[in-house]
Amino acid sequence: MKRPTIADIARRAGVSKVAVSYALNGRSGVSETTRARIIAIAEEVGWRPNSAARALNGAHARSIGLVLCRPARTLGMEPFFMELISGIQDELSARSYALMLQVVKDHAEEIEIHRRWWGERRIDGAILVDLHLRDPRVAVLQELGMPVVVIGHPSAAGSLPSIWSDDSAAVRQTVQYLAALGHRRIARIAGLPELVHTVQRDQAFTRTCTELALDHHVVEHTNYTGEQGAQATRRLLSAPGRPSAIVYDNDIMAVAGLSVAQELGMDVPGELSIVAWDDSPLSQVVRPPLSAVGRDIPAYGAHAARMLMSLIAGEQVRDVQDVTAGLTPRGSTATAKRSP
Amino acid sequence: MKRPTIADIARRAGVSKVAVSYALNGRSGVSETTRARIIAIAEEVGWRPNSAARALNGAHARSIGLVLCRPARTLGMEPFFMELISGIQDELSARSYALMLQVVKDHAEEIEIHRRWWGERRIDGAILVDLHLRDPRVAVLQELGMPVVVIGHPSAAGSLPSIWSDDSAAVRQTVQYLAALGHRRIARIAGLPELVHTVQRDQAFTRTCTELALDHHVVEHTNYTGEQGAQATRRLLSAPGRPSAIVYDNDIMAVAGLSVAQELGMDVPGELSIVAWDDSPLSQVVRPPLSAVGRDIPAYGAHAARMLMSLIAGEQVRDVQDVTAGLTPRGSTATAKRSP
Repeated sequence: MKRPTIADIARRAGVSKVAVSYALNGRSGVSETTRARIIAIAEEVGWRPNSAARALNGAHARSIGLVLCRPARTLGMEPFFMELISGIQDELSARSYALMLQVVKDHAEEIEIHRRWWGERRIDGAILVDLHLRDPRVAVLQELGMPVVVIGHPSAAGSLPSIWSDDSAAVRQTVQYLAALGHRRIARIAGLPELVHTVQRDQAFTRTCTELALDHHVVEHTNYTGEQGAQATRRLLSAPGRPSAIVYDNDIMAVAGLSVAQELGMDVPGELSIVAWDDSPLSQVVRPPLSAVGRDIPAYGAHAARMLMSLIAGEQVRDVQDVTAGLTPRGSTATAKRSP
Repeated sequence: MKRPTIADIARRAGVSKVAVSYALNGRSGVSETTRARIIAIAEEVGWRPNSAARALNGAHARSIGLVLCRPARTLGMEPFFMELISGIQDELSARSYALMLQVVKDHAEEIEIHRRWWGERRIDGAILVDLHLRDPRVAVLQELGMPVVVIGHPSAAGSLPSIWSDDSAAVRQTVQYLAALGHRRIARIAGLPELVHTVQRDQAFTRTCTELALDHHVVEHTNYTGEQGAQATRRLLSAPGRPSAIVYDNDIMAVAGLSVAQELGMDVPGELSIVAWDDSPLSQVVRPPLSAVGRDIPAYGAHAARMLMSLIAGEQVRDVQDVTAGLTPRGSTATAKRSP
C-alpha cells in the first residue's frame, strides 16, 4: 500500500502538513512560491484527495448505481444493456463520475443494495431499468429520497422522473407495414409478461391488428432466450392457420426463429416474414439479414445519465420522451403470398 | 436527502448521540436494554454506517475496479464480458463488495482511471483483462502497489498474480479433431493481433498444423465483429485452395461465416466445417448449430474475484491455471470430402 499522503508531500517539500493542506486546498497561509512547489510535488508523487475525506465533508460520492435484475446468461445475449451502459458512461466519464454495477436475482435484493449504497454514501443517485407492473422498487426509492431516473414509462414510475420511448408507436408502425405488405396473420413473440414495456407492446400489437381487421393475431411470451424464441416459433408454425409474419421482442429470438423456419423448410421471406427488435449487429450477420426495429441505445443511456446528473445537482427534472424506434427493412420481410 | 443519521436515532431514542455511537459500535457505556432499543431504532430507520467515515478510519473501500478497453458496440456482442462480470459479482455480493465498471477508449485512459480510483481510495483492488503484448498497464499497476489480479497469461503479467486458461491446448485439440475428420486445409479467423491470447492461439494453430503436415493453413486477423468475420470468410472461400474447415475466435464471427457459406451456396458441414469459440447461446440458435470451443466463464470470473479478495486480505496469491476450454461438436463439423 503506497498511496502517497499529505505527510509524504510535506516530507519531500520540507514543510509542515498544515502548509501542504493549505496549499492544496487553495487557502492562504503559504506563499505562492511554496504553493507552486507543493502542487508540483503532489503531482509528481501522484497524490489524490481522499474520496472518503471529501464525502465526510459533505461532498458527493461521485458514483451512481445501476442494478440489473436479469439472469446473467440472458444479459450476456442482450447487447442492449452493454450499449446502454456505454452511453451512460460516456456521460459519467466526462464528469469524473463512476458507475457501480450489480447484477441481482430479484427485486428484494435490488432494494437492499440501493438502501445500502445510498445509506453508506457510496452513490449520489441511481438509474432504474426494467420497470415491472406494480414495481416494489418505485415506492422504496421514492421514500429513500435518493435522486433516481427511471428508464421506462412514466405511468409506472410514480413520482420519479423518467425517460421513455414510445414503444406503442413503434409496434403500431411495424404492424401497419406488415399489413401493407399483405400480411393478414401476424404473430408477436414477446419477452417477459411482467415488464411494463412488454405489456405496452402487447396492447399496441393487439389494438393495431384489431383496427386493421387482421384475421388472426397472437402473442406468445418468453424469457428472451433463443431457446424459448425457437420453441414459440415452432409451436406457431406447426399449428393450423400459421402466421405469415412474426415480430420478435429481441434479436436473438428472431435469429432462432429464422433457424426454425429453415428447419421446417419454409422460405424466409417467401413464406414467412421476420422482424427483429433492437437491431444489434446480430440482425445483419444472418441470411437473409433481418428487418429490425431499433434506435440509438447509447444515446438513450447518455440522455438518462444527463438527467440524473441534473437531479443530483439539485435541478428540477421532468419526464422526457426520447426518440421512437424505427423499422429498417432488410431481406427478411416481403409481400405475403395470396392466402390459399 | 433523508439519509438517517446518528442524531436522528438519538432523537427518537431520547438519548445522546454519544450513547447511540457506543451502542452501535458495541462499546460499553450504555445498558443492554438501551443498546437493544437503539439497535432496533437504527434498523427501523434504515441507518447504515457511513462508508466514507469507515474508509477514513482505515477500513476498506469495499469496491473493486474493472476497466474494459474495447469499443462499446463490440462489447455488446461479446457475451464473454457479461458472463465474466456476473461471475465476479457472485463472489463480490457474498462479501458486500461492489464493482466499479468503466469502459474506456485506450490504455492511457485506463491507467488514469486506475490511478484515480486507487488514489482516491474508491477501490481496494482491480481485475485486469485483455493483456496486450508489452502491456503498459502492467508496469504502472505494479508500481501503484494496488492489489491486482490479471485474467491472462502469466508470461505477460509481470509480477502481478494471474489466472489463465491454456488456450494453446484448446486450439491444438481443435485442430487435431479437424485433422482426424480428414481436413487438410484449415483456416483460423482470429481476433485482435495485439492481444496476448490471440498470439498464443495463432502460434498453437500454426505449430499444430505444421506438426500434422497439413497442406495449407492460414490465419486472418479481425476486430471480432461479424462484419470483419464475414469479410475474412468471403476472402478465404473465394480464393483458390479454399479451406474445408474454419476455426473462429468468437461466436458472432462464426455465425457471420456460416451466412457467407450459405451466400456462396456451400453446404455446411458438407463442404465446409465451422468451429465457433466461447460457446455462448448464439452457437445453438443457428442452423446447423455450431460446434464450439467453450468453458464456464462465470466460474472463471468468480475464481479471479476470489483471488483478488485473498490479495486484498493480505494473503500470498500465486498464478492459477484454470480449466482448459473444450470442444462441443454439433452440426457444423463433419468429415472432409476427398480432395479433388
